[in-house]
Amino acid sequence: MRILLHRADGNSGPWIEDFAAALPEAEVVVWQEGTQQPQCDYAVLWQPPEAMLPALQQVKAIFSTGAGVDGIMKFIGRLPDVPIVRLADVGMAIQMAEYAAHATLRYYRRFDEYETQQRAGVWQQLAQHRREDFTVGVLGMGVLGARVVEAMRHFGFPLRAWNRSRKTVDGVRSFAGRAELDAFLAGTRVLVCMLPLTAETTDLLDHGTLSKLPRGAYVINVARGAQIVEEDLLALVRSGHIAGATLDVFRTEPLPAGHPFWSEPRITVTPHISALTLRTESIVQMADKMRTLERNEPVADVVDRTRGY
Amino acid sequence: MRILLHRADGNSGPWIEDFAAALPEAEVVVWQEGTQQPQCDYAVLWQPPEAMLPALQQVKAIFSTGAGVDGIMKFIGRLPDVPIVRLADVGMAIQMAEYAAHATLRYYRRFDEYETQQRAGVWQQLAQHRREDFTVGVLGMGVLGARVVEAMRHFGFPLRAWNRSRKTVDGVRSFAGRAELDAFLAGTRVLVCMLPLTAETTDLLDHGTLSKLPRGAYVINVARGAQIVEEDLLALVRSGHIAGATLDVFRTEPLPAGHPFWSEPRITVTPHISALTLRTESIVQMADKMRTLERNEPVADVVDRTRGY
Repeated sequence: MRILLHRADGNSGPWIEDFAAALPEAEVVVWQEGTQQPQCDYAVLWQPPEAMLPALQQVKAIFSTGAGVDGIMKFIGRLPDVPIVRLADVGMAIQMAEYAAHATLRYYRRFDEYETQQRAGVWQQLAQHRREDFTVGVLGMGVLGARVVEAMRHFGFPLRAWNRSRKTVDGVRSFAGRAELDAFLAGTRVLVCMLPLTAETTDLLDHGTLSKLPRGAYVINVARGAQIVEEDLLALVRSGHIAGATLDVFRTEPLPAGHPFWSEPRITVTPHISALTLRTESIVQMADKMRTLERNEPVADVVDRTRGY
Repeated sequence: MRILLHRADGNSGPWIEDFAAALPEAEVVVWQEGTQQPQCDYAVLWQPPEAMLPALQQVKAIFSTGAGVDGIMKFIGRLPDVPIVRLADVGMAIQMAEYAAHATLRYYRRFDEYETQQRAGVWQQLAQHRREDFTVGVLGMGVLGARVVEAMRHFGFPLRAWNRSRKTVDGVRSFAGRAELDAFLAGTRVLVCMLPLTAETTDLLDHGTLSKLPRGAYVINVARGAQIVEEDLLALVRSGHIAGATLDVFRTEPLPAGHPFWSEPRITVTPHISALTLRTESIVQMADKMRTLERNEPVADVVDRTRGY
């Protein structure tokens, strides 16, 4: 068995070692542009360069090393009709829960304002927000979103979620489809965006939809930058309608120097770290699925090409 | 029935209104220095001034409006032999859990470092700490500490606690007494101080004990400032042995202008807000206990004068 590996960061060594341990029968071929390479059975990648497409024509399945597959789906018309396999949760959900809980508690308990006071040497107790006013709304509650909801439930915040279709999760008010998006937003104080990036979710959060959030709402984005129209969010933060945002993803990454998000005090920027892939655990999961495919059995987490994730 | 009320902040109006609603048969007398006032049945206070002691000689019980009673116990030799009643948890435990979880996640996920990077316009992913290296140790795990432990458990951190006597809480390694303090500290990465202030806990965290924490440990104090020798903590933070601290309480409050904690970037200062008393709920609880005492029945949460809390 041969595995074609692409790592954008060029650091393939630890991946080769972990595949050798998890799947000793496989040979790992690191993809190189412009080189004739042996035919491979499986591809392992996240954001493949266009030049890699010819090498993907003969594989039996494509494995994404991330939960999101938008970097692969943008080439969907030029990919062979083989399974595209997402990474199921391997420690990513709890990381996202940590990220969202930290940002929510920080805004709810006004810790950012207390830090500003500290820098000015001010000792002043601020009025506490009320828990019942802090409804957390998850946009796109899948496996990862469900774990975020659990963390928010632990702290007693009212909960709601918006999805393509109705979801039944205890204590979470479910909104479904575009027809219910405005109502979902109108009652959301802390918006956590966890949507997959598809044609329908691109630019979903623009001036029109973000304005539906109540005054004083807070935005957390751990999904993809292209779901938010950045200048619209910035304008609403500067006007005071939106109180602030914690953003882990951006339309261009790394966030370009001079981008206004860097210096806006009400916007917190992190460098796409909300949920890092745990390499070893991911490779064990992929190796297991490759063995299943070798037995001609179906595997879980195959992308639905129609809905795009 | 008459209730003698003392509020350090002078804002007695809402307390009088809430007592009128919860216990209409009671008359609330606001204590005033140097004035002849009617004899009262119960005293409601937190940090009484020394001049109030004569007025307390005739009451049937003293109610603390906070969880900690050190402000009362310092006068214990001059108080009548009546029950001193602590406030049981009225929404304080979850607030402390929020406070401790926010500070712990902030250090664990390096969000403070990412904010420093943002101010410098730097996009750089930092190595993640390992969950198994982040043992959270609660000093003084009572009712409030047990709730903090639950929040830490939700995020999967290893757990330990130190108390006067052995505690049995699922998944929490218990250490008891001075003989086991060093061992407790040696394995604690995030120390959460929740001790009552007594003669034994005053100055407990000095250079000797804080040095027992492993290099890179983090200190959170939501108990009382006098438990930490502030210059010792500062020296260990500046030397790098302790990575930082989030402190809600101080030896002198408000924290004096010019105190080095204000400007030390590795120390976060908040103005004693980790758990604010919820007035209305507290008054309902006190009114209920006063009615119980009027029936000559025993009440819960009476201070043990020997141990001091």
